[in-house]
Amino acid sequence: MGLIVQKYGGSSVSDAESIKRVAKRIVEARRAGNDVAVVVSAMGDTTDELIDLANQVTPLPPSREMDILLTAGERISMSLLAMAIANLGVEAQSFTGQQAGVITDDEHGKARIIDVKATRIREALAEGNVAIVAGFQGVTEHTNDVTTLGRGGSDTTAVALAAGLDADVCEIYTDVDGVFTADPRIVPSARKIDRITYEEMLDMAASGAKVLMLRCVEYARRHGVPIHVRSSFSGHEGTLVTDEPYEGEGQMEQPIISGVAHDSSEAKVTVVGVPDVPGTAARVFEVVAEAGVNIDMIVQNVSAAQTGLTDISFTLPADDGARATAALEVAKDALGFASLQYDDTIGKLSLVGAGMKSHPGVSAKLFGALRDSGINIEMISTSEIRVSVVTRSDQLADAVRAVHTAFGLDSSEGEAVVYGGTGR
Amino acid sequence: MGLIVQKYGGSSVSDAESIKRVAKRIVEARRAGNDVAVVVSAMGDTTDELIDLANQVTPLPPSREMDILLTAGERISMSLLAMAIANLGVEAQSFTGQQAGVITDDEHGKARIIDVKATRIREALAEGNVAIVAGFQGVTEHTNDVTTLGRGGSDTTAVALAAGLDADVCEIYTDVDGVFTADPRIVPSARKIDRITYEEMLDMAASGAKVLMLRCVEYARRHGVPIHVRSSFSGHEGTLVTDEPYEGEGQMEQPIISGVAHDSSEAKVTVVGVPDVPGTAARVFEVVAEAGVNIDMIVQNVSAAQTGLTDISFTLPADDGARATAALEVAKDALGFASLQYDDTIGKLSLVGAGMKSHPGVSAKLFGALRDSGINIEMISTSEIRVSVVTRSDQLADAVRAVHTAFGLDSSEGEAVVYGGTGR
Repeated sequence: MGLIVQKYGGSSVSDAESIKRVAKRIVEARRAGNDVAVVVSAMGDTTDELIDLANQVTPLPPSREMDILLTAGERISMSLLAMAIANLGVEAQSFTGQQAGVITDDEHGKARIIDVKATRIREALAEGNVAIVAGFQGVTEHTNDVTTLGRGGSDTTAVALAAGLDADVCEIYTDVDGVFTADPRIVPSARKIDRITYEEMLDMAASGAKVLMLRCVEYARRHGVPIHVRSSFSGHEGTLVTDEPYEGEGQMEQPIISGVAHDSSEAKVTVVGVPDVPGTAARVFEVVAEAGVNIDMIVQNVSAAQTGLTDISFTLPADDGARATAALEVAKDALGFASLQYDDTIGKLSLVGAGMKSHPGVSAKLFGALRDSGINIEMISTSEIRVSVVTRSDQLADAVRAVHTAFGLDSSEGEAVVYGGTGR
Repeated sequence: MGLIVQKYGGSSVSDAESIKRVAKRIVEARRAGNDVAVVVSAMGDTTDELIDLANQVTPLPPSREMDILLTAGERISMSLLAMAIANLGVEAQSFTGQQAGVITDDEHGKARIIDVKATRIREALAEGNVAIVAGFQGVTEHTNDVTTLGRGGSDTTAVALAAGLDADVCEIYTDVDGVFTADPRIVPSARKIDRITYEEMLDMAASGAKVLMLRCVEYARRHGVPIHVRSSFSGHEGTLVTDEPYEGEGQMEQPIISGVAHDSSEAKVTVVGVPDVPGTAARVFEVVAEAGVNIDMIVQNVSAAQTGLTDISFTLPADDGARATAALEVAKDALGFASLQYDDTIGKLSLVGAGMKSHPGVSAKLFGALRDSGINIEMISTSEIRVSVVTRSDQLADAVRAVHTAFGLDSSEGEAVVYGGTGR
């Protein structure tokens, strides 16, 4: 018994039947004696349909109006969910981001939550209601304009509301059973992780694990909100994301490796024949940054002595590839490079685990496993609790399986699980 | 040049193309130097689709949640319309009922407007924006909850906003050219009325003319807002509803008759064999009123001397027929009547005209026209500026044509017009 915030994504409320099923689950939590606040996304493909409508009207929708349009989606799902709960005999009220006190900055389309003044939600809970809150949306403090939070927005709403209400846990319901040691579509023997730290989850999310968005985990860590990632299709316990040290049964210490993440959405740009003098790299990446592109990994070759030239490679989201290369071409003479190479057939594998801090040899074991499988490593980057390598994209799945096995992550039961993407 | 409020119904904004066409018309009014505020309904069938969704979730949707659900419809249309206007190079901002300061009572689903505090709309106009306001919705003063206004709500929003802004005119755009002397689908020679008083328009609306809702005309009369009913599909002048005396060209005085309205949505209940003693009628209509049914016309027969019994007939909306007869059956013994007769094959014809106040003989002429066409009159009711009669429903169209001709309302040109229903 306590105060629970639950979040359901678009795929969990895609039609009337699934809304009724979610309502039943919420009512169970309420009848078990908990206070329950629920954050909900727009139904199924509603958001995409609304974007399509806007594009039919204008190629350049003003962002303020786009936010008003998109927030209609949660308005529909939240009121229907409140109705479905009321139909089961439990009082429920729905609230817009504004009514729930979700205050944001005024960056329409990608606003950040400044504060959650959840007075009305607290009152609704105190009166015994289930409170349904629209995910993905907020309101600016002074102009009272509607904003949306961008990708991963509803998860962030849920965590922020849990922080604002000082909830015991924030349950993120999705279409998988939790966070896995690898993507089960690639590694059928992947195991569900029972517990993971914020830091590890951040590195998993940043390395391509899609089950939780980075910003939501960041918010949870900053405010100490425990997240429970679980399936809306089963009653299983999921994955608990928290900062408490792991104390599993019969296990004396934290496992060294939490999981293997992969990401095939990146591309590699190589700037060929750059003068190998101080400041060159800085100028290259200034040009890329001015184009609004975030880069991930960077490798600079050793200079060939006789030419005084070198090559710089970096990875970036493939979606930003055209923008970055166009900016570099414009600056070609100023930067003095010979040519650009663009390669979107790369894959990135990341091994994440807080235990590797105190266990040397993790990188060596990783490289060995890849070598034994005949997989070439093109780039390497490491952090305190993560090692990432770039391979050919068509070798990525083999690489993930090899590393997963080498680090003893394979499930003995070989359980079958279903894995899919998450809603916003 | 002045301040114009325009209102577009759901059929005028049913898809992206029609939204763009409406945007063009708005931009024309703005570029002509006017300040323009626009009230818009939900797109096409959106509202019905949302009601359908709610019914899939629960047979009894709580009215507060139903209002949140339905107001998603205007959110979509208003933001798309603002985008379409911006795409034509004119600044536009959309506002919810709450943002526009439409304050209502807390009767969810049929709220009444208490006040319009249009500060934000005034600011938006002063900054040169076109302001788009969601029709059909408002917000409660103290709890900040979303309400909807019920049938005819968007027209009422437009008139209330025009009153709150002290606008020069409220233009109601619809799919017909204005208010006609009769429904052109029945009377092809019906003429568009150039100007009509609030009182006449109220009687026309109450008698079945669907082009403007009663409550919107009532609001306009109370606040002195001139309404211009016109087509969103043509550039023609429509019908001006105002309290100014008519001064048409070459016309020395007001026409005696404005138009002929008809209504085939009513039914007739006859309470047979009621004791003809004082208080009987009162008790019958108390029972009907307690069932929440509004009645229209009443006729009581002369008592048959030998029995001391009489019959009472009244008309009511056919939709309320089952409720009224059920309530009367329950009270049968207390009221002491013999039996009930129910007839939903009646039609009502109403002749409306402020000029009939000073022109005796209008009723006689009406009855004569019906007699000459072989049409029997079953009930009669009159007000200062209206005469209504009940006929068989299958004779109603003939009756309307006969009366229209008898009072010289037929157009000499015999122009063809298209007539349809209006949105909410």
